[in-house]
Amino acid sequence: MPAKIKTIEEMSIWEDAHQMLRKAKKDGVETAWDRLEKQTPHCKFGETGVCCRICTMGPCRISKKAPLGVCGADADVIVSRNFGRFLAGGAAGHSDHGRDCIEAFHAVAHGETKDYTIKDEQKMLRIAQELGVETEGRELLDVAKDLADEFFESFGSKRDEVGFICRVPEKQKENWKKLGLMPRGVDREITEMMHRTHMGCDNDAANTLIHGARMCLGDGWAGSMIATEISDILFGTPSPRKAKVNLGVLKEDQINILVHGHNPIVSEMILEAVNEQEMIDLAKEKGAAGINLAGLCCTGNELMMRKGIPMAGNHLMTELAIVTGAVELIVVDYQCIMPSLVQVGKCYHTKMITTADKAKFTGADHVKFEMHNGKEQARKVVRMAIDRFAMRNPDRVEIPCEPVDIVTGFSNEALLDAMGGSLTPLVDAIKAGKVRGAVGIVGCNNPKYKHDYCNVNLARELIKKDILVIVTGCVTTAAGKAGLLVPEAIEQAGPGLKEICGALGIPPVIHMGSCVDNARILQLAALLANEIGVSISDLPLATSSPEWYSEKAATIGAYAVASGIYTHLGHPPNITGSPIVTNLALEGLDDLVGACFGIEPDPFKAAELIDERIKLKRKGLGLEE
Amino acid sequence: MPAKIKTIEEMSIWEDAHQMLRKAKKDGVETAWDRLEKQTPHCKFGETGVCCRICTMGPCRISKKAPLGVCGADADVIVSRNFGRFLAGGAAGHSDHGRDCIEAFHAVAHGETKDYTIKDEQKMLRIAQELGVETEGRELLDVAKDLADEFFESFGSKRDEVGFICRVPEKQKENWKKLGLMPRGVDREITEMMHRTHMGCDNDAANTLIHGARMCLGDGWAGSMIATEISDILFGTPSPRKAKVNLGVLKEDQINILVHGHNPIVSEMILEAVNEQEMIDLAKEKGAAGINLAGLCCTGNELMMRKGIPMAGNHLMTELAIVTGAVELIVVDYQCIMPSLVQVGKCYHTKMITTADKAKFTGADHVKFEMHNGKEQARKVVRMAIDRFAMRNPDRVEIPCEPVDIVTGFSNEALLDAMGGSLTPLVDAIKAGKVRGAVGIVGCNNPKYKHDYCNVNLARELIKKDILVIVTGCVTTAAGKAGLLVPEAIEQAGPGLKEICGALGIPPVIHMGSCVDNARILQLAALLANEIGVSISDLPLATSSPEWYSEKAATIGAYAVASGIYTHLGHPPNITGSPIVTNLALEGLDDLVGACFGIEPDPFKAAELIDERIKLKRKGLGLEE
Repeated sequence: MPAKIKTIEEMSIWEDAHQMLRKAKKDGVETAWDRLEKQTPHCKFGETGVCCRICTMGPCRISKKAPLGVCGADADVIVSRNFGRFLAGGAAGHSDHGRDCIEAFHAVAHGETKDYTIKDEQKMLRIAQELGVETEGRELLDVAKDLADEFFESFGSKRDEVGFICRVPEKQKENWKKLGLMPRGVDREITEMMHRTHMGCDNDAANTLIHGARMCLGDGWAGSMIATEISDILFGTPSPRKAKVNLGVLKEDQINILVHGHNPIVSEMILEAVNEQEMIDLAKEKGAAGINLAGLCCTGNELMMRKGIPMAGNHLMTELAIVTGAVELIVVDYQCIMPSLVQVGKCYHTKMITTADKAKFTGADHVKFEMHNGKEQARKVVRMAIDRFAMRNPDRVEIPCEPVDIVTGFSNEALLDAMGGSLTPLVDAIKAGKVRGAVGIVGCNNPKYKHDYCNVNLARELIKKDILVIVTGCVTTAAGKAGLLVPEAIEQAGPGLKEICGALGIPPVIHMGSCVDNARILQLAALLANEIGVSISDLPLATSSPEWYSEKAATIGAYAVASGIYTHLGHPPNITGSPIVTNLALEGLDDLVGACFGIEPDPFKAAELIDERIKLKRKGLGLEE
Repeated sequence: MPAKIKTIEEMSIWEDAHQMLRKAKKDGVETAWDRLEKQTPHCKFGETGVCCRICTMGPCRISKKAPLGVCGADADVIVSRNFGRFLAGGAAGHSDHGRDCIEAFHAVAHGETKDYTIKDEQKMLRIAQELGVETEGRELLDVAKDLADEFFESFGSKRDEVGFICRVPEKQKENWKKLGLMPRGVDREITEMMHRTHMGCDNDAANTLIHGARMCLGDGWAGSMIATEISDILFGTPSPRKAKVNLGVLKEDQINILVHGHNPIVSEMILEAVNEQEMIDLAKEKGAAGINLAGLCCTGNELMMRKGIPMAGNHLMTELAIVTGAVELIVVDYQCIMPSLVQVGKCYHTKMITTADKAKFTGADHVKFEMHNGKEQARKVVRMAIDRFAMRNPDRVEIPCEPVDIVTGFSNEALLDAMGGSLTPLVDAIKAGKVRGAVGIVGCNNPKYKHDYCNVNLARELIKKDILVIVTGCVTTAAGKAGLLVPEAIEQAGPGLKEICGALGIPPVIHMGSCVDNARILQLAALLANEIGVSISDLPLATSSPEWYSEKAATIGAYAVASGIYTHLGHPPNITGSPIVTNLALEGLDDLVGACFGIEPDPFKAAELIDERIKLKRKGLGLEE
């Protein structure tokens, strides 16, 4: 774990962050860094995972004096149960988001909404065919109805495997079946994890973790993948487009609305509403030059990928965005939204609007979005923002620096397009060692780290080594702010990567979307493996989450590893109190699935670690290191 | 919380427990009481629920110095998230058990097993009709196929309410819809709870708890209820029969096999196998007088309710049963099985056999039971027990006391039969004040309490007050050992209850099954409410779990309260660090659903508390107190 961060300059690598941290201090606003200081040192039992609150014979804590809980559970069992539930939290987040997407798609198919429509018919038909839904000579909405039901089945109890397992290389499928890793249904695997971790069920750490991997595969290959695919169908499959990032995207003379969370179902409606002439006129009536919509975190990624909407910041910038004093409304759906935002907003004129019944915030206003009323509610919200503009105190507004240009929109479809419709150029480049491998850098910020220091430096180091980098989630903003998401960044890449990306006209660091869009990386890995005729674990790939904080990041790591992709984390989850769990994560899994976790807080050392792995896999394929 | 227990006599009210605790000490066996001592004092953060490990910005602990977690969550949010997940663990346990029952029933319907069959065809057809499955003129197995699918739907994502909501009084259904309490599908509610409690989702304690109640209603009215109904269909609906309880049911001259856990799917096969002549002959060849099968906990309840198999003990007796030195095998399915049993077994010749892939125990032998091989695996297990008999050391065998007689088997069907086919006699008795109300005493043991002291004394006090007591789970054994589960126990009851039970020939304390069978109590409550034409919350009913320890007990309490039944607990869950959560549980829920929780460790005071509630409800119905 990195040392405690003290000065503002040590808190973040970004000038926009520094400026707002100074302003926060001046304005008396408490931030995550302040609260972290108060919460340090952390409880050692909690940090090592050996504290159990699963029943009321406890709570129990494992120590030399008390090596067993009241029930008899040892450190291994307690850690595995806690970590199993931690992974379940992550899988549930992504997958319940996926279910919400299915419900939206189902509503479209059944004509229950006019606010949402099928934007990418071709993609819908292609996926229907992929999942065995009859398309020949049928009405589009009839296919959609069956496809919605097919998606629901991947959440149910009646299948032996989730639908998108059809994308997994055959050899790997067999291995998953043999190991008990095949995910049957997303919800059942989550429920089963909660069951297994009840007192007196699964008391074999390895067995619990194997189920953890199965559950996470259910997230990656179903919950998340369905969320991604439906979002493309409903809102358009992303294609390359320009956008801008950092707090400079906020506009002093306009009404600023921030959308935050993960699911585009709300934010796409807000986007439509802010573009309506009636709303723009109303804003102008109130003295604003217009309405400026910007994103935060993954809702921001979703809008940026598909519509080029600017990105104000990532996880640790969410409080600081409000500190600008220029934000009228922050409209949230769910996940990773610091509850502190309500309080930070109260220090200014910023109101938080919640939109999902499953994510209310005490002190926020709730405007419930449903399938049939999305546009209407969005207009209501935009009007609230316009009304709020008058409450803004111009003397307290401070918008730092100029925004940075990026190129976004690299869905797999777009990537294939860029390569002339086939993976052959990429495969050839890998074989030739010009692109030595590819690494997805994903996930979060965590105030325990200097904000974005690891995210940015790891990306820089890897492209230097001719390793293509793919970013999603909060790493997107980091890479974007560092100037890595533009074609010109090839100047920072090694010669091979520079040549290939230069020829294709793409950046050496590619933005592939939000956190659920890590499913795009899985799909790309599977496409590559199938193209070469190997398992995913044979490929020179890795993922990394250098500054992760969220359960979802651990879940993503687990499905990446279980899918055969080596995964680096900046710090371990709370598992180090168990030798069995720790050894399985760091080594044992390699024997089972051909991948494991690596832990390294230093981004330069992490780049070496990943590079070693890529060399190993290249060697395995008979390629030069 | 009761004071720390010191002497053996203070640990339990039972002589069989005392004797085995003395033997354990002599034999150097560690028990739950020993481990509790080492784990005391417990962490105050954990006990009050204000410790958060939901992300790796923490772990965080709420104190005066640090009133907010790193994300900004306060004590209310942290407690509600932790408690939401606690309830999810309980709901998942019951409901995943329910799913296993559906899978068994599905296998029977589709001819995939000969080991399991439909034992109660009439009940199956009745339930099919209740749930809207066509039965007229159809083959039994065709109905079964559709009924299995209908059950699966209650676990899915496509319904607005689970199937057995058809049993809920109309007025209550409307209230549940209005409050957002209507459970849609068991698994989705559990997944949604895990999603809501991820960082940055639900940050409104009351909102999280309302979903908790919905999720628990999904357990009570679907997960658990389906488990119960299918178990009756596959293994027979219980009817009154005699049985015996306490450690005296073990036989010195026989091979003793204990079955432990919750789901009868394994234990019913073991029962069939031990009754096979070939097995009995084999046992005799090895010098045993026969094979004695006895139960523990809820698997014990399932076999006792339907087959009269003796019950060796409840939760805190499971280790002590092995200390007799007379147990060859302990065969477990899942839930509430102390991992310590493996170690206790190693101090003797007792082997633990696990049977479910979702509940392995390090150090136990795994014999995987599947639908198609249940009988074959059961025979294998019984042979293992027979082989193990030779390893028994007769010098270390000590079986305490004589078993106590009980009457078991009171399904609702049996209760209705006892009353001549209608609820009228019970309703008349309630109206006349002869039976002033009914209370389900359910749940566990917890070494923080003098074992069974509260369970037994609460039952005794209530029947004195002319309150009918229904027991399930581990309270069954307590009531049975206290001599309360026989018709003669009416001598301990008040005059009204004595008259009514005497006339019906039933005990004043009625055994209704295992923990999932608390769904029978829900159904009985609904039948009564519908008979009288009121909501369940209008009835003079209560439930109590005086010595609870398990997440499932909290879940049961939550679905009881949400269903309108006042619920007493001996101690609160880890929620007292949040004023909002605590107040909602103890008071706020009353306004919403007409019931709430009450906390009282003393069984005599608890009886008064419950009695007050029953008076209140009787008054509300216009009846004498």
